[in-house]
Amino acid sequence: MRRIVVLAGGIGGARFLRGLRPAAPDAEITVIGNTGDDIHLFGLKICPDLDTVMYTLGGGIHEEQGWGRADESFAVREELAAYGVEPTWFGLGDRDIATHIVRTQMLGAGYPLSAVTEALCARWQPGVKLLPMTDDRVETHVVIDAPDGGRRAVHFQEYWVRLRAAVPAHGIVPVGAETAAPAPGVLQALAEADVILFPPSNPVVSIGTILSVPGIREAVAGAAAPVVGLSPLIGGAPVRGMADKVLAAIGVAADTAAVARHYGPELLDGWLVAPQDADAVPEVEKAGIRCRAVPLLMSDRQAATAMAGQALELAEEVRAA
Amino acid sequence: MRRIVVLAGGIGGARFLRGLRPAAPDAEITVIGNTGDDIHLFGLKICPDLDTVMYTLGGGIHEEQGWGRADESFAVREELAAYGVEPTWFGLGDRDIATHIVRTQMLGAGYPLSAVTEALCARWQPGVKLLPMTDDRVETHVVIDAPDGGRRAVHFQEYWVRLRAAVPAHGIVPVGAETAAPAPGVLQALAEADVILFPPSNPVVSIGTILSVPGIREAVAGAAAPVVGLSPLIGGAPVRGMADKVLAAIGVAADTAAVARHYGPELLDGWLVAPQDADAVPEVEKAGIRCRAVPLLMSDRQAATAMAGQALELAEEVRAA
Repeated sequence: MRRIVVLAGGIGGARFLRGLRPAAPDAEITVIGNTGDDIHLFGLKICPDLDTVMYTLGGGIHEEQGWGRADESFAVREELAAYGVEPTWFGLGDRDIATHIVRTQMLGAGYPLSAVTEALCARWQPGVKLLPMTDDRVETHVVIDAPDGGRRAVHFQEYWVRLRAAVPAHGIVPVGAETAAPAPGVLQALAEADVILFPPSNPVVSIGTILSVPGIREAVAGAAAPVVGLSPLIGGAPVRGMADKVLAAIGVAADTAAVARHYGPELLDGWLVAPQDADAVPEVEKAGIRCRAVPLLMSDRQAATAMAGQALELAEEVRAA
Repeated sequence: MRRIVVLAGGIGGARFLRGLRPAAPDAEITVIGNTGDDIHLFGLKICPDLDTVMYTLGGGIHEEQGWGRADESFAVREELAAYGVEPTWFGLGDRDIATHIVRTQMLGAGYPLSAVTEALCARWQPGVKLLPMTDDRVETHVVIDAPDGGRRAVHFQEYWVRLRAAVPAHGIVPVGAETAAPAPGVLQALAEADVILFPPSNPVVSIGTILSVPGIREAVAGAAAPVVGLSPLIGGAPVRGMADKVLAAIGVAADTAAVARHYGPELLDGWLVAPQDADAVPEVEKAGIRCRAVPLLMSDRQAATAMAGQALELAEEVRAA
């Protein structure tokens, strides 16, 4: 059986994975999920990226929105606001809250996040093995301007949800990453993988955060398997999200070749760019990364499946080379 | 200003209080609420009786049901059940959950329950000062038959909600009461009261539990104010709830005179019985408790106000005697 390992953020990663399953129906797919976006709110432990993957693959996602639950209601949020409890900017739905209650209780009872995630997935049956990147606490902070003219760091969710990424980001810090360890199964999955894929997730705050956990970058770089990534930028702009802004924060230009070079040939064997970026192909290949231009818009499941197929094909090409 | 102190359980106490406010519009009303029914579920601290009083007086109660929130939804409960999380028998509504989230967070931050209750009441403006009987943990347990032929103790909510009080209760134990202290303000309110009232709340698991906190029984017994109670039994049956069953568990007959004698003249100066129980009046008076037969069905707010008026009148009679 082919073993595929995918490093995934939220919506982009989840939709790619939904395309990957039918593209590789017999494969054993392991997902290493970003937990740098995790946040504690109202005493609840919230793991937005893990949940987006779980809900998307398990059929519970709010399809149009891309995150949160279908048929969601917001009675708890309304009431918390009526009590004047902060923060009010995080859109916590009632159905979603049940997931956080179960997770928080299990963590409180001493289970590591990886065991909790497995228990939650027992309900959702996502069809992949979903692993958090780490069982340790890592929190992505974004450095922004402070009112006093200096700078301050805010939680990624505050930057993204409350501030809508509308203020300049000067740096991205995965707080706690330096002392975090990969969750059980992560390094083994990378070592035993036949293919490793970077979906069009954010290269800084999603895949970059996963790679910041000591041991994971090295395991990807040292893996026997071909590593193929899909550009999250098309024509220099992110399909969704704020990849351009957080790339700027770490000094990387918002173009697909720059992102490929940022990962570098140490990590990447192959890189898929959109047809609009075909002129980036020679530049990427010059950097030692095999590159193809293929449609990269996940407009529907079929498109995502076609993209996943292209990624697997490029991986085979790399392997054969 | 007249100072009225009421020892209250849940629905009966709350509806009586809603009648008392218009019956004594200028009075300062302090409510000492039962917390023996409190339960931790899903990591949340739930105080059913305090909330019933707060919601009822604050206009947020589910009117027909008598407990829980109006316009309630149950998305969280549905989802918890879908995860297979126990228990499923406690009817936790979405709006209600927000109250428990705020409470649990404040308790976790180190605030005592009395301060938390005050903060929650800042939203609901119940028009009374609502005090928990204690800031300490007291949990009413009910002794029932065990499958092995022996006996076991279950949480009051399990007896009442899960088992619907349909199994024999052999004893009632307010676990932790012996080391609990009255919450700040409780003893002072009793000492300074002009009138003390026992609404038609459960004499065992509501008022009995409040009185089990060391110092409270003594403060009621020693108070300068007249103490008047209203019978929770009419014609030997509870108007609502399971007073008859828990009275049996502590060896008290399910009739209004027996309940009056159970409180005793050390606590009670006056006792109101229903017209159906008029023949109990001489028996209660023989026990040294002034007694009147008046309508005791809180069929609507006006009826509750009339009952409160009768209780205050009997208190004046006691004072003048």
